[in-house]
Amino acid sequence: MGIWFTEKQTANFGITAKIKQTLATVKTDFQELEMIQTEEWGNMLVLDDMVMTTEKDEFVYHEMVAHVPLFTHPNPKKVLVVGGGDGGVIREVLKHKSVEKATLVEVDGKVLEYSKKYLPTIAGALDDDRVEVKVDDGFMYIANSKREFDVILVDSTEPVGPAVSLFTQGFYTGIHKALKDDGIFVAQTDNPWFKADLIRQVYNDVGEIFSVTTLYTANIPTYPSGLWTFTMGSKIHHPLKVKKERFTDIETNYYTSELHYACFALPKFVKDLTE
Amino acid sequence: MGIWFTEKQTANFGITAKIKQTLATVKTDFQELEMIQTEEWGNMLVLDDMVMTTEKDEFVYHEMVAHVPLFTHPNPKKVLVVGGGDGGVIREVLKHKSVEKATLVEVDGKVLEYSKKYLPTIAGALDDDRVEVKVDDGFMYIANSKREFDVILVDSTEPVGPAVSLFTQGFYTGIHKALKDDGIFVAQTDNPWFKADLIRQVYNDVGEIFSVTTLYTANIPTYPSGLWTFTMGSKIHHPLKVKKERFTDIETNYYTSELHYACFALPKFVKDLTE
Repeated sequence: MGIWFTEKQTANFGITAKIKQTLATVKTDFQELEMIQTEEWGNMLVLDDMVMTTEKDEFVYHEMVAHVPLFTHPNPKKVLVVGGGDGGVIREVLKHKSVEKATLVEVDGKVLEYSKKYLPTIAGALDDDRVEVKVDDGFMYIANSKREFDVILVDSTEPVGPAVSLFTQGFYTGIHKALKDDGIFVAQTDNPWFKADLIRQVYNDVGEIFSVTTLYTANIPTYPSGLWTFTMGSKIHHPLKVKKERFTDIETNYYTSELHYACFALPKFVKDLTE
Repeated sequence: MGIWFTEKQTANFGITAKIKQTLATVKTDFQELEMIQTEEWGNMLVLDDMVMTTEKDEFVYHEMVAHVPLFTHPNPKKVLVVGGGDGGVIREVLKHKSVEKATLVEVDGKVLEYSKKYLPTIAGALDDDRVEVKVDDGFMYIANSKREFDVILVDSTEPVGPAVSLFTQGFYTGIHKALKDDGIFVAQTDNPWFKADLIRQVYNDVGEIFSVTTLYTANIPTYPSGLWTFTMGSKIHHPLKVKKERFTDIETNYYTSELHYACFALPKFVKDLTE
């Protein structure tokens, strides 16, 4: 049978993947980091026993967290990514020619280091001239920013460990302040099968601060339940009112301009979490 | 840790679920049947080591295979379900008041027997007055039918064991003949992450026989990759041209009239399989 990595997505359910070899096991200042070479998904980054990204299916998450808000905004120039030390979101952000500067604030420098080493197709974009990388606390960085960004993307882990503060209303208030007057933010907000209460709470919290609050989904096979949600808070622009001319030609493997609208059509039991 | 059931969805990847107890293990004339009580998903029907349905997430598959074609057809009266011995598709079909008769043709009587015993919320509808149940070979039943049905739904296992003949062009030709002049059929066609070639082949085969061929998706956590596809072949009616007035009020937990359209917006790498 060989060696298998198993993530318990709940106490009673999980996924399991055959391993070619373990590339690194590190205890960082913030979390346990593992880099695993799997047979099915290529190299896989695991933090605190949770799959963060894999070479084979990473495109779904990274495209969907970036392109939906970046095409909703008419002219995004300054973009901030909180978390996302693997560099995948930054790679997608840079596909938008309007972007002049993309800042990454990742609390754990080891995530950057090991991603550059073992996930080069994902982390390679971190060396781009338009990118500024800061190893810093995302919550504090947001708290110290004012009317600075067009788009803020929160690519955090699940709300355990270092990411707990990134799921609080105080954080969303800070994001609102850090955004320009027509700014947009998106946060990954876990899955509706096992974390319905979290989605409902974040949606309510964001709704109290932003005038346009929406939820959209994507299929990510290595994430719990395979159905992932993203919560968008926007000061003015509505993602469903984007005109077709806005979509420029970028290379993607999941996102399409058709899906831009369709991803907001929620399954009934997910829609119920927003009402 | 207790006892866990693991399905290898590929040679190198799978899901694993904690078991409360095994309710039945039977070798039928066609396949191995297991009924397992799980902690996470309730009772789970397993055929030849593959999860067929679970009490907790069955609604997604059953609603999506039934309501998309039944709302695309303007007035479905006679419906045939091939396979689907658990009864879930029939339950959804009966929510449509226009349906006068729903025929289920399941090759394995043991699936009916154990579903009635251990999956009563799914199989209960099989006792309805409008339902006719036949324990018979689906391929032959179709071959002997002519211009009889408004809608045919193929709720098969994956193309191994008894279901192999249900993924052939000969079968789709038979379905075309068994449908009335404005008939519609839908077949489950597995997932695009691990079975891309199968989807491409079925889509091509159906496209050669039906004038309107479309593909749509749904998220099913206990099915391989979590992203499931359905191929629809229709003689006249187009699923995206359904008028909003057509949608009658039925109780669902996944399907909505909005999703009826949105589920056809495919991720880029899935859309590529249809081109």
